Amino acid sequence: MTETMNALYLDGTKILLNQSYPLPENDTLIKVHLAGICGTDLEMIRGYMSYKGVLGHEFVGIIEKSDDSSLVGKRVVGEINAGCGNCEYCSKGLDRHCPNRTVLGIYKRDGAFAEYLSLPRKNLHQIPDSVSDKQAVFVEPLAAAFEIKEQLHIDRDKKVAVIGDGRLGQLVARVLNLNHKNLVCFGRHEKKLGLLQKIGIQTRTKIESTDEHSFDVVVEATGSESGFSDAIRLARPRGTVVLKSTITKNRPDLVPAIINEITIMGSRCGPFKPAIDALASGLISVDDLISAVYPLTDYQKAFDEAANSQNLKILLQP
Amino acid sequence: MTETMNALYLDGTKILLNQSYPLPENDTLIKVHLAGICGTDLEMIRGYMSYKGVLGHEFVGIIEKSDDSSLVGKRVVGEINAGCGNCEYCSKGLDRHCPNRTVLGIYKRDGAFAEYLSLPRKNLHQIPDSVSDKQAVFVEPLAAAFEIKEQLHIDRDKKVAVIGDGRLGQLVARVLNLNHKNLVCFGRHEKKLGLLQKIGIQTRTKIESTDEHSFDVVVEATGSESGFSDAIRLARPRGTVVLKSTITKNRPDLVPAIINEITIMGSRCGPFKPAIDALASGLISVDDLISAVYPLTDYQKAFDEAANSQNLKILLQP
Repeated sequence: MTETMNALYLDGTKILLNQSYPLPENDTLIKVHLAGICGTDLEMIRGYMSYKGVLGHEFVGIIEKSDDSSLVGKRVVGEINAGCGNCEYCSKGLDRHCPNRTVLGIYKRDGAFAEYLSLPRKNLHQIPDSVSDKQAVFVEPLAAAFEIKEQLHIDRDKKVAVIGDGRLGQLVARVLNLNHKNLVCFGRHEKKLGLLQKIGIQTRTKIESTDEHSFDVVVEATGSESGFSDAIRLARPRGTVVLKSTITKNRPDLVPAIINEITIMGSRCGPFKPAIDALASGLISVDDLISAVYPLTDYQKAFDEAANSQNLKILLQP
Repeated sequence: MTETMNALYLDGTKILLNQSYPLPENDTLIKVHLAGICGTDLEMIRGYMSYKGVLGHEFVGIIEKSDDSSLVGKRVVGEINAGCGNCEYCSKGLDRHCPNRTVLGIYKRDGAFAEYLSLPRKNLHQIPDSVSDKQAVFVEPLAAAFEIKEQLHIDRDKKVAVIGDGRLGQLVARVLNLNHKNLVCFGRHEKKLGLLQKIGIQTRTKIESTDEHSFDVVVEATGSESGFSDAIRLARPRGTVVLKSTITKNRPDLVPAIINEITIMGSRCGPFKPAIDALASGLISVDDLISAVYPLTDYQKAFDEAANSQNLKILLQP
């Protein structure tokens, strides 16, 4: 361990490998084993959040330095929002809504596309031996999928649609499939939809007229321009649309949602425990979602592959 | 009673007085006593809904012709959505979401800015003698305010904000004030806010920094471009924003709502019974909300006055 490291630094517009980036100094120090590239990372390279710093917020690694020496050597994943610890949200365990939070690789805190990162100890969750590194790196986005169940009770017999067959849509569909057999995933890629069919999820490549205004709950997980209007088109009057992807590209027309009295729920980071448990028990499999693993130095190819809609998850190995 | 009548006809772009418009033939025939001009009417003159026909959907009148002769002479108001009577929504009493509905003065059904209108008998509600015509004409928009309580349970101790001190905002604030003393109305007009202060509602002309992200529930009732973003700014993380006005002018940025996991609820027409009861019992007063009454022939002046933000409700007398 030296005092500098390799890190992918986003300077606001482009990402570059810095081979002598300073090691993070505060909180618990973690050596990164694997990090995942997410749609948000791609948006941020395009300017979303005006972030400058080390990118990356999905990771698994080993604690290398901690105030509590018993933690050193433990394999962990980490919640990305580091709250102030004193406000009303932090006191309810909702650090992810703390107004003074930093966010790993997203806001005022260097991220996981580096050899090391740091997070407060309370953000870390130990990973059981039965969960591999390649599985554990999915805990953060899988927790975001479980967040839907935290926010919304959906009766078992309700009709549920997921729009999007990509990284996030796959995880959302797999989580909702645990309780809802009346589930349809809408996507554009036969190959990706095929992965969901294998676990018994109905899929469609097109919205049929019989699908329109027929779903009680619709989860938008495309990140595409048409995702929001497709979701409103699928939802029944007085139904619910959950927005999982941050739609930065366009500003949608809300009028049809008002006329049909649709409830629209923003949904973001979620609880880690059910995500870790689902991977450990084998209830949810993510092994088929990894398209490739690249060393950090091959970051350019890794981001290109992540932006290619034929692929699913691309991992970086520092 | 002749076979033609005076009616204000919207030809898609402008409104004209037709003095020999045919009388409506189907359903129950009502002679209109008073009709109210609503923000939606003004939007429709600007092209919203691409409607051609007689405008107007807030009214009180007398039944002049009905299959059931016992109804003739009864003073009534009417629900504006006429459902097909056969679909799943109609069977639940939710005609207002029937996919084959017509809507008085809005969609495929001539409206209330005329000497006569017609509606199915089941849409009509008799008005008790204790409620004057000038009060009864508020039943439809007041029902829309009560719709919030149908859609959303708000605990008594929650902080609630209403944005907008106009026609709709006034009614929404008065309805929410029945159960919520922790209520603030944000508006731009001292005179209009003064009406709310008189009944004990807190008001503000400006969003202070201490107001930001502090309200559990925010109701957007401005119809203005900034209404949506102001509402998201006022709502606490995981709070709820209710959209009462159809925002046709701009397409809002949803990203802050997603990050703060705000629930956004479209809200439209509502239940007539609590609105009539609240007027009959005096629980809600609307007498201070009428700015002027014009004969139908003075429609141009009436619409100009309705578009003037200094005014509240403008009524037409056919």
